[in-house]
This record gives sequence, C-alpha cells and structure tokens, in this order.
Amino acid sequence: MLAESRRVPAGAAVLRGDITEAIQAAVVEELAAVGYGRLSIEAVARRAGVAKTAVYRRWGSKLEMVLEIVAGVAGRKLPLPDTGTLTGDLTVFMQILVIALRHPLASQIIPDLLAEASRNAEIAQTLQQALRANQHEIGTLLVGRAVERGELPAGTDPDLAVDLIVGPIYWRLTVNRDPLPTDYVRRLVDAVIAALSA
Amino acid sequence: MLAESRRVPAGAAVLRGDITEAIQAAVVEELAAVGYGRLSIEAVARRAGVAKTAVYRRWGSKLEMVLEIVAGVAGRKLPLPDTGTLTGDLTVFMQILVIALRHPLASQIIPDLLAEASRNAEIAQTLQQALRANQHEIGTLLVGRAVERGELPAGTDPDLAVDLIVGPIYWRLTVNRDPLPTDYVRRLVDAVIAALSA
Repeated sequence: MLAESRRVPAGAAVLRGDITEAIQAAVVEELAAVGYGRLSIEAVARRAGVAKTAVYRRWGSKLEMVLEIVAGVAGRKLPLPDTGTLTGDLTVFMQILVIALRHPLASQIIPDLLAEASRNAEIAQTLQQALRANQHEIGTLLVGRAVERGELPAGTDPDLAVDLIVGPIYWRLTVNRDPLPTDYVRRLVDAVIAALSA
Repeated sequence: MLAESRRVPAGAAVLRGDITEAIQAAVVEELAAVGYGRLSIEAVARRAGVAKTAVYRRWGSKLEMVLEIVAGVAGRKLPLPDTGTLTGDLTVFMQILVIALRHPLASQIIPDLLAEASRNAEIAQTLQQALRANQHEIGTLLVGRAVERGELPAGTDPDLAVDLIVGPIYWRLTVNRDPLPTDYVRRLVDAVIAALSA
C-alpha cells in the first residue's frame, strides 16, 4: 500500500488525478459490493491501493466522498441523438437507458442510496438534484424536438413524458428484475407516443 | 425484557401469535431504521420487547426471518374495487398505490432489499416472486374487466399495462422523491388509457 505513489509517477498533477480516479472507481465498486452502510474508508483505500490519508486529503468524511462521487455519476448526461423522428429518438434513448440501467450504479448503488436517503437528508437532496436536473433536460429536449417537428402538441409536459419513458423500464428492469421481451422497447415507444398525443 | 410473556397472557396460542406479530412489526421497523445490512436479531428482540430466543424459536436466521416477513408484506393484495369504468378503476387503483408507496416499506425497505438482492440470490428470488405474482394478478384483473366492457381491445398486454400504471408513479415518488402535482393521477389515467387503446 503506497501513500501518494500508486504507479510510476509521471508528474505530481497527473499523479494526483490518477489517485483520485482510482479512489472514485474503488468507491463505486465498494458501494456495489457492500452498500453505503457497510462501506469503510479503509476498504476503499485498500481497493484503490492507496493509504487512508490519501482519501482523507480529498474528502472530509465518508458521506462527503460518496455524495460527490455518486452525484457526478448520476448526473452524467445520457446521449440523445437527433434521429429526425420522435419514434427514432425514443427508440434510441430507451436502448441507451436499458444499457445504463444494467450498470451496477442503477441496480445496486441507487437503490441502496435511496434507502439511505430516507435516513439522511443530505443524501436525499444530492440524489434528487442530480436526478431531477438531468431528467428535466432530457424531457425538454425530446419533447421540444417533437413539438417542432409537429409530432406532439405544443404544451406537452416534458416531466410526464420522462415518467412514461423511464418509469416502466426502471420498474421492470430494476425493481422486478424481469428481462425485457424482445419487442418491449418498440411497444413502449408506440404506447408513449399514443399517451403523449392524446 | 420478557421471554415469551410480553403482555398479560390470555392463553398460550394467543400469546404466541401476539409475540410473533410484535417481532414482525419490529423487523419492519428495524429494516426501515437501519436497513438489512445493519439489522441485528438483538435489536429486533429489544424493539419487540422479547428475548432473542423468542426470535430464534421462530426463524433460523436473520435472512430467513426477513424474507418471510417481507414476502408477506410485499405480496399483500391491494384492493381493486370495480367502479364500472376503466377510468374509475385506474383512478382508484392509482390513489391506493400513491398511499402504499408512501409507506416505509416502499420508500426504504424495498430499495434497501433491491440493493441487497444483487448480492444475495435468495433475497432476489423471494422479492421477485412476491412482486411478480401480485402484479400479474392486478394487470389481468384491470385489463380483463376493461376488455369485457369493450373499453380496451382484446389481447391488451396486462404486464405492459402494469408497467405503465405503476412505473411512472414509482419513478416519481420513490426514486425522484418528487411530490405529485394535484392533477397528476388524472393525467396519468388519460395517458395510460390512450397508450393501451392505441
């Protein structure tokens, strides 16, 4: 276990970034493996191959460390390519979502932190802000394009749209842990367009 | 802390049932308070006001105890009154769902066990079976009534229907922890009917 010299140093700045990234990856892996409640700074440091002091130099506490790292990952933008039609945009977005929801972040870490959030206001707030901002942006972009193309009525609610797009897939994949039937995305795209056009 | 005599005994059978119920309630409360990972038989016994031996007489392990109790609660049937129309049935069911999802079981215990499920196959299987059987029954009943009344086409998929009904509300209430706008249920009912009629 090395203090701040995990690999052959290429320069102090590169080295610090390298160690920070190693710790971040270790936190995500530890959260998936044991959950927030049982996560220890010691185990994170061990997994990252650094000394505990390297962790404490970066974050004041376990809570602070987990919040910063999870907010960064949960707030990451999913790509939203403009395919030229609402059917195309929804199909591509849902396919990306299915892949994203199979990541341990969605299947283990988010549910674990949701449970923790009801006991800890700081976790609740950080998680909410990251998720909300991200989703509102996705909904506004998807619905905005479709309204411009004349595919959805002006005034379509982007937040209800996101609930209808993400909710069913999250419910089936993450809560029920049911595999998606092969034509599920196609049928859900049709259902969502009909729902929003009504 | 009393062994098998928590309150004034009214008879051995009544007494045993009384203690079992006290332990069950204590398990649900402990799961909400500290989560599965940190739950201890000792804390459950303390909360229930019984001796640890009273717990071990009923369940062989913490896992066995939690699985039996959570499966019982998660598998509980929500009432599905027949209001005479699909709009009415969906409105009442969603209102009941909103109340159910505000219970700590949905906001804390299920997310916690979902995280645990990815580390423990027994928890995953028990949770899946309880949730799936329940939902398939709800979907079949709701869709079946509507098809009979001529409100939905024959062949409407009851499982997709459940995903569209439960998914958005679960996503918004339990994951995002956003309050529902006052007209949300009405708009979601319209959206779901349009989606399933398409």
